[in-house]
Amino acid sequence: MFTSDLSETFERARRDLADLVKLQSVSAQGRQLPETADAVTVLLEAEGFTVKRYEGQVAPVLIAEAGQGARTVLLYNHYDVQPETPLELWDSPPFELTERAGRLYGRGASDDKGELISRLGALRALKASCDGELPFRVRWLIEGEEEIGSPSLARIVREHADELRADFCWWEFGTIDPAGRPVLYAGLKGILCLELRARVAQSDLHSQFGAVVDNPLYQLARALSSMRDEQGRVTIEGFHDDVRPASEADLGAVSRIPDESSALQETYGITGFLGNASGAEFYRRLALEPVLNINGVHGGYGDAGSKTVLPATAFAKLDFRLVPDQSPSRVAQLVREHLARIGLADVEVVELESHEEPARSDLTHPLVQLAVATARDVYGAEPVLHPSSGGSGPMHPFIEYLGMPVVAMGIGNLGGRVHAPNENIRLEDFQNGIRFGAEFFRRLAQY
Amino acid sequence: MFTSDLSETFERARRDLADLVKLQSVSAQGRQLPETADAVTVLLEAEGFTVKRYEGQVAPVLIAEAGQGARTVLLYNHYDVQPETPLELWDSPPFELTERAGRLYGRGASDDKGELISRLGALRALKASCDGELPFRVRWLIEGEEEIGSPSLARIVREHADELRADFCWWEFGTIDPAGRPVLYAGLKGILCLELRARVAQSDLHSQFGAVVDNPLYQLARALSSMRDEQGRVTIEGFHDDVRPASEADLGAVSRIPDESSALQETYGITGFLGNASGAEFYRRLALEPVLNINGVHGGYGDAGSKTVLPATAFAKLDFRLVPDQSPSRVAQLVREHLARIGLADVEVVELESHEEPARSDLTHPLVQLAVATARDVYGAEPVLHPSSGGSGPMHPFIEYLGMPVVAMGIGNLGGRVHAPNENIRLEDFQNGIRFGAEFFRRLAQY
Repeated sequence: MFTSDLSETFERARRDLADLVKLQSVSAQGRQLPETADAVTVLLEAEGFTVKRYEGQVAPVLIAEAGQGARTVLLYNHYDVQPETPLELWDSPPFELTERAGRLYGRGASDDKGELISRLGALRALKASCDGELPFRVRWLIEGEEEIGSPSLARIVREHADELRADFCWWEFGTIDPAGRPVLYAGLKGILCLELRARVAQSDLHSQFGAVVDNPLYQLARALSSMRDEQGRVTIEGFHDDVRPASEADLGAVSRIPDESSALQETYGITGFLGNASGAEFYRRLALEPVLNINGVHGGYGDAGSKTVLPATAFAKLDFRLVPDQSPSRVAQLVREHLARIGLADVEVVELESHEEPARSDLTHPLVQLAVATARDVYGAEPVLHPSSGGSGPMHPFIEYLGMPVVAMGIGNLGGRVHAPNENIRLEDFQNGIRFGAEFFRRLAQY
Repeated sequence: MFTSDLSETFERARRDLADLVKLQSVSAQGRQLPETADAVTVLLEAEGFTVKRYEGQVAPVLIAEAGQGARTVLLYNHYDVQPETPLELWDSPPFELTERAGRLYGRGASDDKGELISRLGALRALKASCDGELPFRVRWLIEGEEEIGSPSLARIVREHADELRADFCWWEFGTIDPAGRPVLYAGLKGILCLELRARVAQSDLHSQFGAVVDNPLYQLARALSSMRDEQGRVTIEGFHDDVRPASEADLGAVSRIPDESSALQETYGITGFLGNASGAEFYRRLALEPVLNINGVHGGYGDAGSKTVLPATAFAKLDFRLVPDQSPSRVAQLVREHLARIGLADVEVVELESHEEPARSDLTHPLVQLAVATARDVYGAEPVLHPSSGGSGPMHPFIEYLGMPVVAMGIGNLGGRVHAPNENIRLEDFQNGIRFGAEFFRRLAQY
């Protein structure tokens, strides 16, 4: 265990984080992105990193490298943040790191500047205990477009694969749960967002013509109800063909996740779960099953009372959450074929911008196990390992293209208000994150 | 044929119409309703009518009577109009009857003040040719709430049945088509407007939870797609049990309606008709088949791009168009039973305010035939007789409760912009309407 006194490291990391939070690096609005990339570069170079800078779509991407050794670890973080609005809901200025009751508040305090700085602190601590030399090679990919869907990332990974190869990739995000258990994720689902557009006429009609004219909302209802069943299982022909069966390790992992389904149910006032799932089945669906969700349907009259209209058009927005080895473009094609098969070829299928391939690490990989064991030892609690998050992100090129296991683990907390006003981390999680990182790097170097 | 010189009657009717159009009797806004009822009363009393006035929900209802004879005819009209907005789209002031290119423009010029005055003119013309005495009894029900759904009408009919009984009821509305053919309707469909409300949680969720939480838009899609088929036929159990089979006369009538389906298709840019219906089948569906139409569905995200949300709630608005002997309240009950049967009992069914029973006259009734024959002779063109409009209205108590045949025939035209800016009638149709009325009354008195 990494037992050095880290109080000085903690103080310095906190000052670094305060400096970084000051920079308003809102990628959705293109604010202060090169300036923030500069500030991160200064921090990295001060620790001996060589930093290369590549142009992304709206923000620079940094690829940094430091240290020497038999093992190489790749870190993935981002320096951009979500917009700070609505301002009036913040209890302290969003771009001023502020301590209250054991928490540090500020935009990016958790997502992802806090995590970035905690890892920098961990590297400093380890280096200090190794006579100023890192005993392994660390590569660090830090982008500024994560909050807008990482539009440049897959290309950067392809073009700079040689600068990114490693034995293991430590992904951004992750929480410490209310029971003090670190929560890790070894994969992300893929995503495909579609819009279905139905049209039956050029202008709205009196609803009496429903006797002879089809209804675009009925067409969408038929399309949507034919694509999944009451249990939520997708019923599009060929959809499951590419689904990689869950491994025994995956199924074992979901069965060990503490069941918090009833807390979720209470928090959101959920009327019930599909198939009354709870426990292992609940987490199996969340982590390992592909999903068709409907984000919105709109068409025709929506105000009070009735209006006897037959709308000319209507649209539906969907997202598919995909699992290995499904592919978003293949699924889009299957949706088109499905609609044609049921006589709805005229319903237009538009692929929206979100489009991620799914990825999941092999949980039996020794370095995945090393991360879990280190977390267990540092936090003194049994880690919660999800084979995959139910959410999506750009993890695929790392696992499938660079061929390394990827695990997300971080310093968030369930009340961390990520993406919302009063984003925060607990000071204790920040410090434990630095200690975990130092210990994990130490073990990795010796592995 | 009624051959008197009617030029003086035409002039006087036009002045009466101009006076009536000046009154802004917008029932939706409660404007000048008693004043307009007063003005109509003055006009009727000047022709020897006894006028009784009853209070409706927002406007007086007039029941007037004049004349003596073996036959009694009931007229149904209304003195209220639709709102005049948007004002800027009118080419002349909405409440000032204005002639342009052979047409009279103004709110209510067609619907329904023009029709009311044309009937008054017809009575005057006939009376003048009969030494000042009407040779039959005419009863006239004139309400001021038609444009807001006639909320008092069924009650008034029930409470004053003895003052309303007649051999025949001449209903408001009807057009002269572009080929000069008078278009008559011998029935109206019933209507039931429902809202379906689905809820799966108290607040929206991240869409990853679609793996374990049902989707309100999927529930609505399943409900809607299960209630009708691709041909538009309603598939709710028991829905067709009360449908009175179309008579031979009904089927014969729809087969004689000139096929204007392709004109409709072109006007509205309709992509195609259900079952490729045209001709007799097109009009059979429009007049004689019950329909489920979807007026609107709304829930979740509706702006540009994608938002990965699982909405907590969604709603759908529907209207059923019903045929004899279906009943709106029975259909609402069948919808609830249907949803329970398919496991969607939690979807709330709310009955909206529109609620009309269906009604259809016997086309073989001699007085229906008399109206058609008179129209044929006066207009010199083969009348188009629809067994029922595809639309709905409060005709049911007249046919089913008072037990008389009802036929709608009027002075409208397809470009008449009823309910819209620049509402108008053709001067020729106004005058022909007066002539038709005089001849029809003459024949009716002698029948």
